[in-house]
Amino acid sequence: MRGALLALLLATALLAMPMGHMMAHDEMANTVNLQEAVAKLKNVSPQTKTCLSCHISVTPGIVADWLKSKMAHVTPAEAWQKPALEREVSTPLDEIPANLRNVVVGCYECHGLNPEKHPDTIDHFGFKIHPIVTPNDCAVCHRTEVEQYSKSSKAWAYYNLMHNPIYRALVNASTMFTCMGKTFGGERTSQETSCLACHGTVVKVVGTVDTISHGIPVTLVKYEGYPNHGVGRVNPDGSLGACTACHPRHSFDIEIARSPYTCGQCHLDPDVPAFNVWKESKHGNIWFMHHKKYNMKAPAWKPGADFTAPTCATCHMSLLVNPVTGEVIAERTHNVDTRLWVRLFGLIYAHPMPRTGQHFKLSVEAMPESTAEALAKQGLTIAKALVGVKLPMPISLAPDIKTGKFLYATLPDGSPGLISEEEMAKRREQMVKICSACHNTEYAEYRMRLLDTQIEETNKATLKTTVLLLKAWQSGLAHVDLAKPVTLFDEYIEKLWVESWLFYSNSIRYGTAMNGQDWTTFKRGWYQLTKDIEHMKTLLRLWEAARAAAK
Amino acid sequence: MRGALLALLLATALLAMPMGHMMAHDEMANTVNLQEAVAKLKNVSPQTKTCLSCHISVTPGIVADWLKSKMAHVTPAEAWQKPALEREVSTPLDEIPANLRNVVVGCYECHGLNPEKHPDTIDHFGFKIHPIVTPNDCAVCHRTEVEQYSKSSKAWAYYNLMHNPIYRALVNASTMFTCMGKTFGGERTSQETSCLACHGTVVKVVGTVDTISHGIPVTLVKYEGYPNHGVGRVNPDGSLGACTACHPRHSFDIEIARSPYTCGQCHLDPDVPAFNVWKESKHGNIWFMHHKKYNMKAPAWKPGADFTAPTCATCHMSLLVNPVTGEVIAERTHNVDTRLWVRLFGLIYAHPMPRTGQHFKLSVEAMPESTAEALAKQGLTIAKALVGVKLPMPISLAPDIKTGKFLYATLPDGSPGLISEEEMAKRREQMVKICSACHNTEYAEYRMRLLDTQIEETNKATLKTTVLLLKAWQSGLAHVDLAKPVTLFDEYIEKLWVESWLFYSNSIRYGTAMNGQDWTTFKRGWYQLTKDIEHMKTLLRLWEAARAAAK
Amino acid sequence: MRGALLALLLATALLAMPMGHMMAHDEMANTVNLQEAVAKLKNVSPQTKTCLSCHISVTPGIVADWLKSKMAHVTPAEAWQKPALEREVSTPLDEIPANLRNVVVGCYECHGLNPEKHPDTIDHFGFKIHPIVTPNDCAVCHRTEVEQYSKSSKAWAYYNLMHNPIYRALVNASTMFTCMGKTFGGERTSQETSCLACHGTVVKVVGTVDTISHGIPVTLVKYEGYPNHGVGRVNPDGSLGACTACHPRHSFDIEIARSPYTCGQCHLDPDVPAFNVWKESKHGNIWFMHHKKYNMKAPAWKPGADFTAPTCATCHMSLLVNPVTGEVIAERTHNVDTRLWVRLFGLIYAHPMPRTGQHFKLSVEAMPESTAEALAKQGLTIAKALVGVKLPMPISLAPDIKTGKFLYATLPDGSPGLISEEEMAKRREQMVKICSACHNTEYAEYRMRLLDTQIEETNKATLKTTVLLLKAWQSGLAHVDLAKPVTLFDEYIEKLWVESWLFYSNSIRYGTAMNGQDWTTFKRGWYQLTKDIEHMKTLLRLWEAARAAAK
Repeated sequence: MRGALLALLLATALLAMPMGHMMAHDEMANTVNLQEAVAKLKNVSPQTKTCLSCHISVTPGIVADWLKSKMAHVTPAEAWQKPALEREVSTPLDEIPANLRNVVVGCYECHGLNPEKHPDTIDHFGFKIHPIVTPNDCAVCHRTEVEQYSKSSKAWAYYNLMHNPIYRALVNASTMFTCMGKTFGGERTSQETSCLACHGTVVKVVGTVDTISHGIPVTLVKYEGYPNHGVGRVNPDGSLGACTACHPRHSFDIEIARSPYTCGQCHLDPDVPAFNVWKESKHGNIWFMHHKKYNMKAPAWKPGADFTAPTCATCHMSLLVNPVTGEVIAERTHNVDTRLWVRLFGLIYAHPMPRTGQHFKLSVEAMPESTAEALAKQGLTIAKALVGVKLPMPISLAPDIKTGKFLYATLPDGSPGLISEEEMAKRREQMVKICSACHNTEYAEYRMRLLDTQIEETNKATLKTTVLLLKAWQSGLAHVDLAKPVTLFDEYIEKLWVESWLFYSNSIRYGTAMNGQDWTTFKRGWYQLTKDIEHMKTLLRLWEAARAAAK
Repeated sequence: MRGALLALLLATALLAMPMGHMMAHDEMANTVNLQEAVAKLKNVSPQTKTCLSCHISVTPGIVADWLKSKMAHVTPAEAWQKPALEREVSTPLDEIPANLRNVVVGCYECHGLNPEKHPDTIDHFGFKIHPIVTPNDCAVCHRTEVEQYSKSSKAWAYYNLMHNPIYRALVNASTMFTCMGKTFGGERTSQETSCLACHGTVVKVVGTVDTISHGIPVTLVKYEGYPNHGVGRVNPDGSLGACTACHPRHSFDIEIARSPYTCGQCHLDPDVPAFNVWKESKHGNIWFMHHKKYNMKAPAWKPGADFTAPTCATCHMSLLVNPVTGEVIAERTHNVDTRLWVRLFGLIYAHPMPRTGQHFKLSVEAMPESTAEALAKQGLTIAKALVGVKLPMPISLAPDIKTGKFLYATLPDGSPGLISEEEMAKRREQMVKICSACHNTEYAEYRMRLLDTQIEETNKATLKTTVLLLKAWQSGLAHVDLAKPVTLFDEYIEKLWVESWLFYSNSIRYGTAMNGQDWTTFKRGWYQLTKDIEHMKTLLRLWEAARAAAK
Repeated sequence: MRGALLALLLATALLAMPMGHMMAHDEMANTVNLQEAVAKLKNVSPQTKTCLSCHISVTPGIVADWLKSKMAHVTPAEAWQKPALEREVSTPLDEIPANLRNVVVGCYECHGLNPEKHPDTIDHFGFKIHPIVTPNDCAVCHRTEVEQYSKSSKAWAYYNLMHNPIYRALVNASTMFTCMGKTFGGERTSQETSCLACHGTVVKVVGTVDTISHGIPVTLVKYEGYPNHGVGRVNPDGSLGACTACHPRHSFDIEIARSPYTCGQCHLDPDVPAFNVWKESKHGNIWFMHHKKYNMKAPAWKPGADFTAPTCATCHMSLLVNPVTGEVIAERTHNVDTRLWVRLFGLIYAHPMPRTGQHFKLSVEAMPESTAEALAKQGLTIAKALVGVKLPMPISLAPDIKTGKFLYATLPDGSPGLISEEEMAKRREQMVKICSACHNTEYAEYRMRLLDTQIEETNKATLKTTVLLLKAWQSGLAHVDLAKPVTLFDEYIEKLWVESWLFYSNSIRYGTAMNGQDWTTFKRGWYQLTKDIEHMKTLLRLWEAARAAAK
């Protein structure tokens, strides 16, 4: 195979390359012969061989994807040979079931794992198979990653949205409407195709369906809430999350997981414009021109040696190692929360990170008394009614006017809900250390300080729109009944208020954090935020003019 | 040419590759020597050789592009040698004019074809040349493709827009305004640079212009409505469409035609966010990271073997073949309509696909009597006036309140205007078959059912905004005169109504169909749709408050 | 190094390529060994060697980026060996300081240049180092480029925004708000993170900070307004601009500078949608599919030979050479203004290009008397108050109703502020010449004429929204006090007026110029522009209804 003849043949073929864009003839370049590729595999279990014998032609796309995966080529025992920093299996080898250690990770190894724990296990040509592989299955080899993940706010994304009455009200108000006396919007399916596509659904097994697939009778599982690959998916086995949200089946590709496109599926304009901001930053600029030359695969990722422009994963998740000294710049984590010191998005007011990923367990005072009094002096009496209403996170309707502080979040046991200042400083320092692979520390810290100021300024802007909302409730332009949280969000001016923090303040904070300049300006930045304020004022003015005329 | 020495030289040059991003010296990589490339061509007609002798220096960009095309390298006779599934010429070889069979397809072969049929034929240095090559010219070799295309709603895109009085009214209302008593917006040029850029213009030959180009006196054709490459362009020879919309001149590259960027030029946010939705789906995520490794050229396109993440073309146009069994999964079509069972976009209410691509020939009842009566009970008397108004497609102002059905579309001969339920089921099954190259059928069908629910929910939302529009007309906030269709669309609240279906309902349907989650949520999804409803309600409320005060 | 064995080894390694997407094992592909790469460098100055000895491990990202640069590999003397068209150094070799001619351009060569001229020079381990390298430093080798740039409106971008009271008012109105009697928005930091991120900040040295970096005590400069890489940055040494805006540190890569992503950081939706329009044009379509095959590096850039689809740089900056004849199609320029004949964006009314890049020095009549009279006849008396108010560029509130002309811009010495018709024609001809590398001249000129019509139509639309704004001021819906320019922009209807020209008219002009069809239609095109007009009308109507009721 490796003789001089081959070198010549290959070299001849490659001759076309510098002239590559002149040639239309290399039609078979990049085509993979699946049968040959499968035939070359080593250490495939007999069960997986059986799976492959049909699925190579029944679902060739899946098999082809899996062939690209490391799973198809490396056994857990081999994976354990790697030096610690390059190892991608975290469960101690002797705790991985013996029958899995020396076979590559194929169809049966995952879909046949612990059949009794999966309510969706069916008989599939004599095998006990469950279609949905869950984090509990992945943890057999990737224990540390699953443990980290399960503590993150991502794992709890369904609960944090749907078990917080305030957020649930926002979801309901945003997906339902009445027409001719009936309610539409489809609580389940409309929410499933929108909010829950990212946050995750509750997947229920509702039965099986017998069908003919490729000419063969087959029984398939019928679910409610699936297909869904939301980060906080509540699986049939009770586990939380879908590893496939970022490691899509069946290549489970670290290159994809580290790509900005993955994060950008959920963290995007208008409510979480992280991807969009990065895309328009200098980091994005350089990425788009040169990322094909990066090494996106090295488990221990080395700034400068493997890549220059960072992606989301670089700063928020990946194991980073100095390419010259070998020093670990940042440990790998699958709990993204732990690299963040402030919570920038999805909140009325930005504040320090919660101590737990289970945000829905936090509660908070609605409005400090001193603020309610200050507002009351302006005749905004409804504000007074909000004092002392203990609300589930993260609704803080206004800061303490005396101290400027926004949140008094507590956990059910009364302990503080947010991380300490010391912990904040530590996480911030970790981020500066990452920046410092390419920038001096003062360069990085100046941007952090800019972020501090913009958090404060946008929080004040939210207070401003909240004052205007109180006026709308006060004047009868809109209505609220705190016993029915949906009434916070179901009218036009209330939605303008929502946008002031959910879209514009968020966008300014992201744009500042990552230097995506139009997201702080015209896209959904200061221009749109100040316009939003003026929009609310104009509606109030028109309403009051009509009411004054009526008197 | 193919000796060991060459192999060595080449290998040495390639040494730079793994270190590629360290080197700034390979400045000539990727540079093409046009003269050498032209000199190497075989089977070029004498006429085309003459063309090339000037155009290589006069318009090197065109010549370079053409050199990349298959046209420049393969004669029709050679193309016919290919096995059926890999063949890209569809006209039987003996029906292709003899003089074209054994020359590559160069400048003269297309621009000199059938000069008498082209009103824009001019004398160009002794040749009869027409600048605009039309589908009728392409059909000389690609008969099947042109026949399919000519039946599609794409071919009729100009007519479907401009010969439907309702749509034409929307175009007019969206591009014109009055100021100081004069009308502006420029009916022709403003529409030509906006709507008709995608739908196609009517191209008229208005004369010739004599000019000096690269020092040489030359006569050029002067057109009205050209340059334009809209899919429904009405060509000087009366044919419809521009093959170059998707196969851009002069490479006619199947890779470009299959790329999502091509479709994304017209099928994009906010009215047809197909590209945007796909881009943010998992399919898009994978594509952006890995498509450079795909084989985008194979005429018989094999899921898994040639690509993993599908583009628009994969599901809607391309010939798909199982890479293992060779089974045809889907036949190639240039009539995209035939793979669709519902019409999701550009409509007030989504409904089954029309039986014809000539949508402008369909007509429909404006509003069923039962609905008008139900609305009248709410005091919405103007609704009654709409009963029985036969409107050109696709304006159905409301569903039959008794049956929930939306359309009674008919063709001029009274036959049904929409495809049957059987045909719908057949096309849906074809799509599920395509999905099934990578997903199980229940997985695919669950998403189809989600789409069903979201079509229903969004149709109901449109009924809701239509009720609000009727109230606006009823209360005098807006005005309508059905004899002047432009009055349906020319006021602010009417435009909010338009957006409820043209932007938001569309976006939810696309987002559901292709799992682009933010397009169903915050981008232009349920949040924006419910906000639009509340916006209309607030305008009505302000208007009524002022009117009440006046009493 | 170059023996047959190596060829074989290499060829064997390359065997993986056609099967590339099946393999997960080439984890080290694309990884660079920084120490080896540095060791191979030639002609590095002793000072730069010292820098590298630490910085290779302290900031490996910077060193890696620099290793990719031409700077690291070529001395100025070597650069001067290149033929004139391929030369990238413009300062005559004998005017480049002797000590710089024969060393590659490393850390010390730039950061140690002219220490006395830089207020931010510090002692850094015995070297006099300034962190911010300015255009004056770059001019040591790139004199012509810096001279051109310094005359451009880019270099003056800070002044053009902040020293024009009208624009400064727009900045203030867009970033500040009052709440409970206090002003927020943070004039400095909010503007620094938004508008000035593109326009550039004023960078001030505020002191130094002693810190521990990578275990070593180090003194860093503390700035106000930095990091910032805006095109009009006012540097500590008084120079204007940041070459790094487009040539990012430390690769200074021409490929990045020529990429559309660079320009797209600032020239983007919604106010300057140049990148967005191009992206959705056929040029963008082709680029996204094929640009990896382009030669983006050749200093003399050859259409057809090096690339097909043009980027921003192709038409607006780069040296273009006919690949066959060697004729110069367009000279390189770093003053983008000089290839433009009309100023399309950032203006109330589009008009011919200013004669100077220092736009803030231009002044203009607010409104011609004839127009004020015409408006007065409609009862718009406030219009009369605007006559004769000399405003800084580019505020022209209305055209001369008799002649249709919009601007009477003058420079402080009374000379015309805009280029002559002859100069306009010359620049337009240059652009048509660029188009003509791939299109015939009539094809290009038809689009130019379309642009002419759309400039006229959008200018008329702005007159329309200005009339509506005058009515709003007249009727008391909004308030203006010309002595306080911020009052032009601080209310909701005023912001709608701003959007009519800053977003929608701009977008239509760009969409027409570069054929990005949705930007002329639904994105921010004619649909949004006519909706904006109707929105203003509806607000006026609601306001007047309430006022009428009050009477």
